[in-house]
Amino acid sequence: MIIGKIIGNVVSTVKDPKYNGYKLLVVQEMNCFGEFEKNFYISADLIGVGIDEVVMLVNGAAARTSVETNGIGFDSVITAKIETIIFEDKVIKL
Amino acid sequence: MIIGKIIGNVVSTVKDPKYNGYKLLVVQEMNCFGEFEKNFYISADLIGVGIDEVVMLVNGAAARTSVETNGIGFDSVITAKIETIIFEDKVIKL
Amino acid sequence: MIIGKIIGNVVSTVKDPKYNGYKLLVVQEMNCFGEFEKNFYISADLIGVGIDEVVMLVNGAAARTSVETNGIGFDSVITAKIETIIFEDKVIKL
Amino acid sequence: MIIGKIIGNVVSTVKDPKYNGYKLLVVQEMNCFGEFEKNFYISADLIGVGIDEVVMLVNGAAARTSVETNGIGFDSVITAKIETIIFEDKVIKL
Amino acid sequence: MIIGKIIGNVVSTVKDPKYNGYKLLVVQEMNCFGEFEKNFYISADLIGVGIDEVVMLVNGAAARTSVETNGIGFDSVITAKIETIIFEDKVIKL
Repeated sequence: MIIGKIIGNVVSTVKDPKYNGYKLLVVQEMNCFGEFEKNFYISADLIGVGIDEVVMLVNGAAARTSVETNGIGFDSVITAKIETIIFEDKVIKL
Repeated sequence: MIIGKIIGNVVSTVKDPKYNGYKLLVVQEMNCFGEFEKNFYISADLIGVGIDEVVMLVNGAAARTSVETNGIGFDSVITAKIETIIFEDKVIKL
Repeated sequence: MIIGKIIGNVVSTVKDPKYNGYKLLVVQEMNCFGEFEKNFYISADLIGVGIDEVVMLVNGAAARTSVETNGIGFDSVITAKIETIIFEDKVIKL
Repeated sequence: MIIGKIIGNVVSTVKDPKYNGYKLLVVQEMNCFGEFEKNFYISADLIGVGIDEVVMLVNGAAARTSVETNGIGFDSVITAKIETIIFEDKVIKL
Repeated sequence: MIIGKIIGNVVSTVKDPKYNGYKLLVVQEMNCFGEFEKNFYISADLIGVGIDEVVMLVNGAAARTSVETNGIGFDSVITAKIETIIFEDKVIKL
């Protein structure tokens, strides 16, 4: 899985009706030290998060297995909020 | 998922018969600020869109889960039209 | 999906017996304007094509869903021959 | 599959409830000679490993097939501890 | 699919028990002209091959569909030995 920060919301009225009720968020990838990478993902929120929160993304077909998305065509979902990463010599709060 | 703009149509007469009835569109990737990236995708239209519209793509095996494509061999499908992206400090109309 | 031109044939005698009867072709990727990219794929022919033809590839696990390959371990299959791409301001014959 | 070294632990309290009981580890990719690459993965531990151990990762939707994860939304899991790689002309202990 | 040469063996004692009986090989990618690329894969041998042989890899979730691996968590398997690639103007023995 990868880490990213939520930086925006996508507005779409014409879409697969199975998407109704899911927030589509813009997530910018971060490395494990909390620094931004240049990749962006549109990812479906499964846990209730918002702007500026750091989250974990499941990408690819594995996204379909997550809690509520079985049978819905998402290739990227947000499945956890990341609070802290503990390294051997430091702790990073996100 | 990723964002892209529709820039062309693919014409194919010899093909998997399951593809009949689906438009195959050329989509150029965009970043979340509406700027073009250099990647191109041939993607199946599931929602009824056309040239110059900005759309969301589902790529990979997750594409098969989308509304109408269960059992059809697509690795990229168009599942939403993107109208606006809302950031903390600006709104981008696409 | 992506576009490519068939440039070669792979000969293999020791292989998964489920592959018997399928041609394994070397495909060089093209961009949507018909220019070569540097990626190569070994892809299974599902529609009956040959050297120098321009085709569409389905890659990844979605390849398994295509017409004849359900249950066969291919991660790249050829599912359509591409004849023409129509852009707003030009038509490219491939 | 790829090789990596475990360099950290991820702490998350708000998450998909199916994740309960799984350690989420930060893994830095290595090449097959034991040298670090620059990619990082958040990967679920299926075998009981810890900081500084060298492991094998299964990525993508194949991660769901592994021992205990059927039906859980992981796109990266740790399925083996790597002790040694044997080349024709040398042996590398990891 | 892609082509590669087998350059090593992975030794692992702590692992997913479903892996028992499978050789895990180090494969260095080659292009279709038999020249080495810089990518390496740990791949499960399904056909009985060894050091210095040139093989075809199936990567990603499609690897699970191959002959013996249904239900085992591999994201890369060796499914064919490549002997020759035939181009329009030359034949390459591998």
